[in-house]
Amino acid sequence: MKRIPGPGFSFTLRVSWPDAVDGLGLLAAAAANAGATIDQVVRPEAGEARQRAVTFFCGSLEHQQTTLAALRAVEGVAIERVDDDTYFGHRGGKLRVAGAEPLLDARDLSRQYTPGVARICRSIANDVQRSFVLTQRQNMVAVISDGSAILGLGNLGPEAALPVMEGKALLFKTFGGVDAFPIVLATQDVDAIVETAALVAPSFGGINLEDISAPRCFEIEKKLQERVEIPVFHDDQHGTAVVTLAGLVNAAKVVGKRLEDLTVVFQGVGAAGTACAKLFLSAGIRNIVGVNRSGILFDGKPGLNPAQRHFAAVTNPGKIQGGLADAMRGADVFVGLSGPDTVTVEHIRTMARDPIVFAMSNPDPEINPEAAGPHVRVMATGRSDYPNQINNVIAFPGIFRGALDAGAKRITHEMNIAASRAIAAIAEADGLSPDHVIPHPFDRRVPEAVAKAVHAAAIGGGDVRKRLDTPGVGSLADV
Amino acid sequence: MKRIPGPGFSFTLRVSWPDAVDGLGLLAAAAANAGATIDQVVRPEAGEARQRAVTFFCGSLEHQQTTLAALRAVEGVAIERVDDDTYFGHRGGKLRVAGAEPLLDARDLSRQYTPGVARICRSIANDVQRSFVLTQRQNMVAVISDGSAILGLGNLGPEAALPVMEGKALLFKTFGGVDAFPIVLATQDVDAIVETAALVAPSFGGINLEDISAPRCFEIEKKLQERVEIPVFHDDQHGTAVVTLAGLVNAAKVVGKRLEDLTVVFQGVGAAGTACAKLFLSAGIRNIVGVNRSGILFDGKPGLNPAQRHFAAVTNPGKIQGGLADAMRGADVFVGLSGPDTVTVEHIRTMARDPIVFAMSNPDPEINPEAAGPHVRVMATGRSDYPNQINNVIAFPGIFRGALDAGAKRITHEMNIAASRAIAAIAEADGLSPDHVIPHPFDRRVPEAVAKAVHAAAIGGGDVRKRLDTPGVGSLADV
Repeated sequence: MKRIPGPGFSFTLRVSWPDAVDGLGLLAAAAANAGATIDQVVRPEAGEARQRAVTFFCGSLEHQQTTLAALRAVEGVAIERVDDDTYFGHRGGKLRVAGAEPLLDARDLSRQYTPGVARICRSIANDVQRSFVLTQRQNMVAVISDGSAILGLGNLGPEAALPVMEGKALLFKTFGGVDAFPIVLATQDVDAIVETAALVAPSFGGINLEDISAPRCFEIEKKLQERVEIPVFHDDQHGTAVVTLAGLVNAAKVVGKRLEDLTVVFQGVGAAGTACAKLFLSAGIRNIVGVNRSGILFDGKPGLNPAQRHFAAVTNPGKIQGGLADAMRGADVFVGLSGPDTVTVEHIRTMARDPIVFAMSNPDPEINPEAAGPHVRVMATGRSDYPNQINNVIAFPGIFRGALDAGAKRITHEMNIAASRAIAAIAEADGLSPDHVIPHPFDRRVPEAVAKAVHAAAIGGGDVRKRLDTPGVGSLADV
Repeated sequence: MKRIPGPGFSFTLRVSWPDAVDGLGLLAAAAANAGATIDQVVRPEAGEARQRAVTFFCGSLEHQQTTLAALRAVEGVAIERVDDDTYFGHRGGKLRVAGAEPLLDARDLSRQYTPGVARICRSIANDVQRSFVLTQRQNMVAVISDGSAILGLGNLGPEAALPVMEGKALLFKTFGGVDAFPIVLATQDVDAIVETAALVAPSFGGINLEDISAPRCFEIEKKLQERVEIPVFHDDQHGTAVVTLAGLVNAAKVVGKRLEDLTVVFQGVGAAGTACAKLFLSAGIRNIVGVNRSGILFDGKPGLNPAQRHFAAVTNPGKIQGGLADAMRGADVFVGLSGPDTVTVEHIRTMARDPIVFAMSNPDPEINPEAAGPHVRVMATGRSDYPNQINNVIAFPGIFRGALDAGAKRITHEMNIAASRAIAAIAEADGLSPDHVIPHPFDRRVPEAVAKAVHAAAIGGGDVRKRLDTPGVGSLADV
């Protein structure tokens, strides 16, 4: 599908023109001819007074090139510099580490470092649990990846994963107030990943696994959680499941169907599909049919790996076989977690009345929302330019905020369900409609509500650390 | 030795008193009687108008207790709250992770995260070296410890090491503009430490090893540097050596002796002593005698570990034997890297004319500076309350700043020597004297000069990464 011009492929020109020339008018006309749009025009902080920095939105790399060629052809306008805004914004990385308090003088130094810090070290040595009060562990999450399944790009290795993990850390901070730090690993061996994550765990209050391919991710998450007493959360699985369930619960209300009556087709049975199915089943959905490249998964199907065998065993109660078309016939819900353009209008036409279609492949959905539009009742995607964006950022910052504040040792199924309900409730309170089954990703009420719900579920579950007051404060005793 | 009241053992009272009472006068008198001092009196940001927060400096934990008891006995003053300032300042840890740029809206999100980030990932996958330009690696150092030798406290484990590593990261940022992040490890096995550090290395541009006990630290540093193409630096060794050599070079000038004529006694032959001796030898000092708990180290002495055997082989050319008293007789320089109160005035009296004494055990030196004062010509310690503070912060922030900016793959001996010369030159330019052989740790000229010298030495040595321009900028091509 053709991409709409936007910030993902924008570039900025440093330009100037003589007084007699309407430079901006000429550039705007050339951009419009090339199908691009102007985002902003500013005077650069440094540079000559007549210079302007003009930012253009394009839809693809090729579109950037044709637009730039058209702009270069504008007479009377001098282009002094061209910056791709995405590259420009990634120079030197996206994160900074700074002190909570400034270090101004010898007095600060003697409290925050030697000799004062020695008292804090001794205090923690006497009771390691104090590290959750007196160090960065109180609020610090590791974002760990081996780069084996980066976004939809595949296995590009740890260094290439780093920009995504930095972005994830930024989302943790922006939406949850959680400090997060990327750790990308120069190994893709399951046991080496578990071992390394467990050995660095004393620096952190939680671990978010990210972009690790299935089925390895299942084993890594399970083994690692058995090794450490801090929450381990694979966001590609559970974050996706939490948000998708929230959207589906509301979509079912919009079409007036009960969860237990729905037939749900999953296309893609990897990390996200597996976790979604598990959470859906626990929420009362009974009839899930999974489809992957080999067709419909059913109990006893040959050639499945252990994770897929388990999926097949707990889903598809009717034991139907065949391909996607067979699964879609009469289904109420389609959940796409696979790749672009794999579903057709013909597939959707065979679904039950008021079809619900969650086409979440990113950036290009399983079916173009414009094409699907007339044939579905509720449509959701992973994209920000259509209604009902299913975005993990709706869940994970609040989930960790709640888990850290509760001193949770793990993130339980109950905590995930609580998060999903809190998300669904916010959209419902604002009024449900086919175009509104999930809150906006920038809705600031959401992380707060999720954190509160997860906190309560954690305390209710009881697998939390004993609440410690800051040792020494008030008692003046190194204990 | 008795500690002077200072910020290391300060506490703050939240107090109030009726108008008719001179509360502050009464508290000041009681504090003075108890041997404590008032540091500051401020109106709390929140609280009643008549409340004051009064901070008292004490000299020890016991002194805090006796002072507090005296203050509680003051009539007419209500103490509402007592906070130990060091504990108070460590609540929640000392570091924060934040975005270099804010994430304000969907436009920022689509550049810093999906879909825009995918282009950066692909670019790095095509050439991993770009990770040093387009990710946090450009400016991010890991501060790695196993907690086996925390300050002078010993082996307290990883969680107890975390406050020191957070402080170190703070120093990196404050003095070198280097982002640094603490990784404390739940293992003390040499090979496991090397393996873990190597596996997390793709997240970082350099590795600073910290508070790892000798002789394990030597093997870890060597093996790790063979595994990774980013600088590995054990600050307890090399940082200490760089700063100590700078101070000694200037001290020798003050007493008018040539380096090659000096006899230097080391007390303590651990990580720091070994690295100091190595750097001293390369600077032209010929006669070094090491002393540890077993007495003087000499070639062929039984019971030495490999690191000590090497030390003995390259030092003590006169093959003298015996204890500290034997080593001190006629020596020009004493370098203490051991523990408190292990050297006497009698030892110093047997030294050659114009003794140079670097008593760097922290917080309590090998000999009390007041006691040693009349008998030495140049005295240096690790303390901030005496002249000539030998503090690693004088070296490591600038060393990493220079190494990162040069794209150095390792920190060479030549880079350390360059750092030491730059430090010595700043003190010399300001005028040398017995009380001024080393710059002040807060002298902002120092990290800049060190970085410049190290950068030049790195480029000169040639073991640096090829300089990459930001890919895509100007070219608008995902390459």
